[in-house]
Amino acid sequence: MNYILKDENAIYYECGYSSDNALFIRFGSEAFFLTDSRYTIEAEQEVKGATVIIERDLYKKANEIIKLSKIKKIMYDPKEWSIFHFEKLKDGLKIKFKPKLDFSHKKRVVKSLEEIEILRIASQLGAKAFDRFADMIHADGFKKDEYALTYMAKSSLSDHGKYELSFDPIVAVNHNAAKPHALPTEDILFKKDLLLVDAGLKYQRYCSDRTRTVYAKKSFSFDYDQKFKNKKIQKAYDTVLKAHNNAIAKARSGMRAKEVDALTRDIITKAGFGEYFVHSTGHGVGLDIHEMPYIASKSEMVIEDGMVYTIEPGIYIPDLFGIRIEDSVAMINGRAEIL
Amino acid sequence: MNYILKDENAIYYECGYSSDNALFIRFGSEAFFLTDSRYTIEAEQEVKGATVIIERDLYKKANEIIKLSKIKKIMYDPKEWSIFHFEKLKDGLKIKFKPKLDFSHKKRVVKSLEEIEILRIASQLGAKAFDRFADMIHADGFKKDEYALTYMAKSSLSDHGKYELSFDPIVAVNHNAAKPHALPTEDILFKKDLLLVDAGLKYQRYCSDRTRTVYAKKSFSFDYDQKFKNKKIQKAYDTVLKAHNNAIAKARSGMRAKEVDALTRDIITKAGFGEYFVHSTGHGVGLDIHEMPYIASKSEMVIEDGMVYTIEPGIYIPDLFGIRIEDSVAMINGRAEIL
Repeated sequence: MNYILKDENAIYYECGYSSDNALFIRFGSEAFFLTDSRYTIEAEQEVKGATVIIERDLYKKANEIIKLSKIKKIMYDPKEWSIFHFEKLKDGLKIKFKPKLDFSHKKRVVKSLEEIEILRIASQLGAKAFDRFADMIHADGFKKDEYALTYMAKSSLSDHGKYELSFDPIVAVNHNAAKPHALPTEDILFKKDLLLVDAGLKYQRYCSDRTRTVYAKKSFSFDYDQKFKNKKIQKAYDTVLKAHNNAIAKARSGMRAKEVDALTRDIITKAGFGEYFVHSTGHGVGLDIHEMPYIASKSEMVIEDGMVYTIEPGIYIPDLFGIRIEDSVAMINGRAEIL
Repeated sequence: MNYILKDENAIYYECGYSSDNALFIRFGSEAFFLTDSRYTIEAEQEVKGATVIIERDLYKKANEIIKLSKIKKIMYDPKEWSIFHFEKLKDGLKIKFKPKLDFSHKKRVVKSLEEIEILRIASQLGAKAFDRFADMIHADGFKKDEYALTYMAKSSLSDHGKYELSFDPIVAVNHNAAKPHALPTEDILFKKDLLLVDAGLKYQRYCSDRTRTVYAKKSFSFDYDQKFKNKKIQKAYDTVLKAHNNAIAKARSGMRAKEVDALTRDIITKAGFGEYFVHSTGHGVGLDIHEMPYIASKSEMVIEDGMVYTIEPGIYIPDLFGIRIEDSVAMINGRAEIL
């Protein structure tokens, strides 16, 4: 099988190293890793199973390598390539370029035991960061706005620069939590507010992803057990938690992704909140923060042992509040295990 | 003129707002801004001179809008579009898509007075961040490694979350500074080391960019006046500073970019360091950290009033040390003014 990859994580998966300017080419058993001279030292130390080539113009060089080989076709992912770079790559070549959508994501959907252990460590470090963030809020976070709280969350997650983040954390107070992808505002966190935090970090390039919604009393913790004063909020919270727990208890290898989605959605719908659960139940997590499998109401993908994905049901009442509870799980011995 | 844009900054330039999932279409005097429902409120408040359209699938909607119009051709930048998204956009359309490389960057190369004022504020805030970073090092930065120092630089630049960064700052000690794009290592900063810092922040989406190289004595400052104990380092430093000052003093509107490049390169070459100046003299700065004009030895672009770019000569002696001094300048009344 011949293929050429451009995405940084897709390349890392093939050879254990990557950079922000790299290409990876495989012709059967032969493989090439191309990058520029900024990365010579790291590439030569870390690339496994591929010849390292240092060049200024990677696309021109890849074109030459393909020309010199005698292959007749090569696969690529049309999501990875800009028209500009693809034209440079193909320039003058007579071979067939075959589009394979999500080529690398499909290869990566079932994780190895080693990958699951890395993801488990990432998740555990992520959970510890939530605890540190709670401590920071207790010490100095009340009466601060979402911008300041987001910065505190970043400090906690990165452990002051030690880890990269999986994504910009979401830290939303009260009605701002009703936006599933809330951006920070100048709204201030007071005691007894609702606080939603969705955040993750990277460990050995693999992502953690977790959400908690809490009643921000004087000394709260980011655990499942939350008591809100407002009854409607409490009802929504209990419904989301029940949906979350149900999916984790009943997800099985062999089910279709849409059946796992139904394990959260049916509970939320029965409780009368169906129209307020505006997104899918979850998504795969690995080197990318969003991977396969997508746990969506229309996904026919069969869940298998080794898949790692989020369970993150939510209820969003516009202008009032939003609830989401999210954990990352791995399918092990047929069941979902929280990482 | 009809065109369709996908790049976030290219779109911001057209209508004063953008998001990480947006398209902008112009048919003559008519314009459309497309984004998804996460950004409804902000888009409706901030987009100027275009109809806001909220859709789940932007590419399908853009395809419909183009189909309904009666235009015969439309321009796009092949650097902005993945093959995947471009195929979705074009699906079934009979009109001509004309590639225009760097379409938006070419429009943006000459800045308005308003843009220059924003860039000036960004640069001044960036300079203040360097001062804060120096204070942090004096208080608690010696005997820390480059990872910790990079995190301190990020805290200074962002002013604890208030500003986004133009790019991940480069903080390099001694021989690590010999890599123009150094990544942090576990090497530790001691007093009397050489310290190179290349960093910038964003103000109203516009980037600052600045580099200083200093002799990290007990109480140093990030200014031009540096005295190193090592004579070879001092000679290289004085040469880089002379090259930097020469370009700023002698750059004129009407020169070609390669002539501005020669204003630094000739001085470094005459001093015997030519082979160690391994990059161009500078690059444009604006909404993107790298824009036109490129101040390179082969660039024929004519420098005009209103262009904003960096002057950043350097000397890099492998395994020993690196020096770079960088300021961003605006061409005003024919001359380069440091922002």
